[in-house]
Amino acid sequence: MEIVDLLITNASQVCVIPGPDGPQRGPQLGDLGLIANGGIAVADGKIVAVGDTAVLTSHYYAPQVINAHGRAVTPGFVDPHTHIPWLGDRAAEFEQRIAGATYMEIMAAGGGIMSTVRATRQASVADLVADNLPRLARMLQHGATSAETKTGYGLETAAELRQLDAIAALRQAQPIELTPTFLPAHAIPAEYHGRTEAYVQLVIDEMLPAGAAWAKEHKTPLFCDVFCEQGVFDVDQTRRILTTAAALGYRLKVHADEFVGLGGTKLAVELGAISADHLVKTPVEDIAALGAGDTIAVGLPGTPFGLAERDYTPAQAILQAGGALALATDCNPGTCWCESMQMVIALACRYMKLTQAQALVAATLNAAHAIGRGQEIGSLEPGKQADILILDTADYRQLGYRFGTNLVQTVIKKGVVVAGNR
Amino acid sequence: MEIVDLLITNASQVCVIPGPDGPQRGPQLGDLGLIANGGIAVADGKIVAVGDTAVLTSHYYAPQVINAHGRAVTPGFVDPHTHIPWLGDRAAEFEQRIAGATYMEIMAAGGGIMSTVRATRQASVADLVADNLPRLARMLQHGATSAETKTGYGLETAAELRQLDAIAALRQAQPIELTPTFLPAHAIPAEYHGRTEAYVQLVIDEMLPAGAAWAKEHKTPLFCDVFCEQGVFDVDQTRRILTTAAALGYRLKVHADEFVGLGGTKLAVELGAISADHLVKTPVEDIAALGAGDTIAVGLPGTPFGLAERDYTPAQAILQAGGALALATDCNPGTCWCESMQMVIALACRYMKLTQAQALVAATLNAAHAIGRGQEIGSLEPGKQADILILDTADYRQLGYRFGTNLVQTVIKKGVVVAGNR
Repeated sequence: MEIVDLLITNASQVCVIPGPDGPQRGPQLGDLGLIANGGIAVADGKIVAVGDTAVLTSHYYAPQVINAHGRAVTPGFVDPHTHIPWLGDRAAEFEQRIAGATYMEIMAAGGGIMSTVRATRQASVADLVADNLPRLARMLQHGATSAETKTGYGLETAAELRQLDAIAALRQAQPIELTPTFLPAHAIPAEYHGRTEAYVQLVIDEMLPAGAAWAKEHKTPLFCDVFCEQGVFDVDQTRRILTTAAALGYRLKVHADEFVGLGGTKLAVELGAISADHLVKTPVEDIAALGAGDTIAVGLPGTPFGLAERDYTPAQAILQAGGALALATDCNPGTCWCESMQMVIALACRYMKLTQAQALVAATLNAAHAIGRGQEIGSLEPGKQADILILDTADYRQLGYRFGTNLVQTVIKKGVVVAGNR
Repeated sequence: MEIVDLLITNASQVCVIPGPDGPQRGPQLGDLGLIANGGIAVADGKIVAVGDTAVLTSHYYAPQVINAHGRAVTPGFVDPHTHIPWLGDRAAEFEQRIAGATYMEIMAAGGGIMSTVRATRQASVADLVADNLPRLARMLQHGATSAETKTGYGLETAAELRQLDAIAALRQAQPIELTPTFLPAHAIPAEYHGRTEAYVQLVIDEMLPAGAAWAKEHKTPLFCDVFCEQGVFDVDQTRRILTTAAALGYRLKVHADEFVGLGGTKLAVELGAISADHLVKTPVEDIAALGAGDTIAVGLPGTPFGLAERDYTPAQAILQAGGALALATDCNPGTCWCESMQMVIALACRYMKLTQAQALVAATLNAAHAIGRGQEIGSLEPGKQADILILDTADYRQLGYRFGTNLVQTVIKKGVVVAGNR
């Protein structure tokens, strides 16, 4: 008998989600590697073995045993695109939109992203930490064990760095592992209205170097991301920002094709960005580029839903082209305040036509690859971190099928139970 | 000082939702009667007084005080349309639908409503109770303190009566008050395939009298409901069933216009039904009838969402016509397995264009009227039952704006805390 720290036994299904060679790509997306009546052995926060419960318990002894009692077990969700941390809320703006106010009317009334920027600029690091901890706790309760978080509500150097400091503090303060992204090119701040080029120059000359210095000081690799969109940053500006960022050591991401397809996805592939996110209005040639390249398409179905729009990421076309697809919440106060990856799966099944198995792979293994952590998290293979969910159901296919509630019963992070429901 | 049982103090907002004369109708829908820094005094399970915290605490003393600490307080949600109790699940069918299987292919493979009927027919009352208790617990956690529940998966007399027995047992076993509805005319059972008239005759001659006898024996008023829909029961069959039911003492409800507008809503108004439910494809003249009559329109936005359909209840047209609108989950295993009225509010804001205030009234006061209980529940007026929610936010407008998670912190039923989150 080998002694380990933890045994999980009697799972109706262990969804292993094999992916030794990277994300699951193309129409093959959806291989769960299901093990019936399965179990998992964990030591030092990592998975030692996965297999049939009887076989496992004859080989391993552990002082702690969690009997799953016929429930399904999956990897912890990875949420590769959130806008945490922010301050303030826009519930009143949501109300105005329902009543018919246009985006421009809301902006004129001081609403829109600039209201979040104003609130976040005034916030101290301590304010940001206090306000965002409950958000992360909610994400954890709903099964996210790792997440990407970003700046982008500062839009001035000091405030952007305070957001990075808040992310660093939030990493220490709660169990979800946070991967930071620097996004000073999220919007054009009010004081640069009509002077986009001047703001791009500020980003390139001052903000990117400041972020790179922060990354070096904190020994934390940083992603750099740009909101490539009509009326925000065009393809040329995006290219200049990302090229500078790459030279400074950032890894790259792009917000592309949310409202208008400008070519941001093709640019992401060309520059070797790890992911291109949103991809609602993605042109056919950009979809083909995803199939040929390594950039992962991150669908954010909570956002069109949040805005009550009709179009969603054309997931099946991306898979048909041979692309790799991940899912994320896009959790943010303007278009999609949703902390639940389960809700995202429910939306993806309906509006991106993913089966529950495809959505589950997109929300775990492929999402891990979309933040560069596919070798450590996102599946239940031996050697990976023991980030594990026990669901409140025997069939993983209830994810997506059921919606609006929380089907995660127990959340395990690095081999330790960190959240439970009921 | 008057002594009461419970004081709730320091609510940022108490949403009273005044409605002394019935449901809120027409474009006036959405009056919350907000009290800032409010409180509630409760005695014998009923609301004694609502008002400013300082005024209230100077008049009333209670051994139990719940300090809302600046959170918003609303009435408990009333869910006026669910298909609880049922047995079995249809997660595999959901997967087949995503992969492109048609409704007819699923039916041919033994799926669809008949799979739920088969499972429910085989279930004992104890089976039904055990399987549906967690569902009701989930509804309660998400804020529903009263709900309608129905038969309709038996489709034979004995099995329909077992569903009523299960509802009676579930009423005793948990805190949500359940209003029962008899729905043997939910579908045409397989053994009557091609013989709809014969089944209608069975409903009229045998099932309705059996249900009426059950109601008398259990001293429980029953609603009778019919699924008036193309391919199920036409308007004439619906009329005959409901007319018989009314003569036997049932109050009336109708499932109308879910897929095709047949005139079921106009019939509901004509027969004085308390509600007409679904109302997605409702013809213009039926909308006008709702404005002229007393029948409440119950929107079930979880169902088009569950089916990924494009059309929702035309709420603003119904309000423009002067109608009264309520919201419900339609919780069922085929088209909408969702126990959360908060999710329904989020859908109604986006796809029925209700403001958060309108949706909140539709989910409380108007929903109470849709099950004939508007005089007892659905608002926080003195004399009403103390069914109260403390939200996990200071602004009720976060309901609807945020989605996919649970914003209810504390659930109080008849003055007693029955559920809490975090």
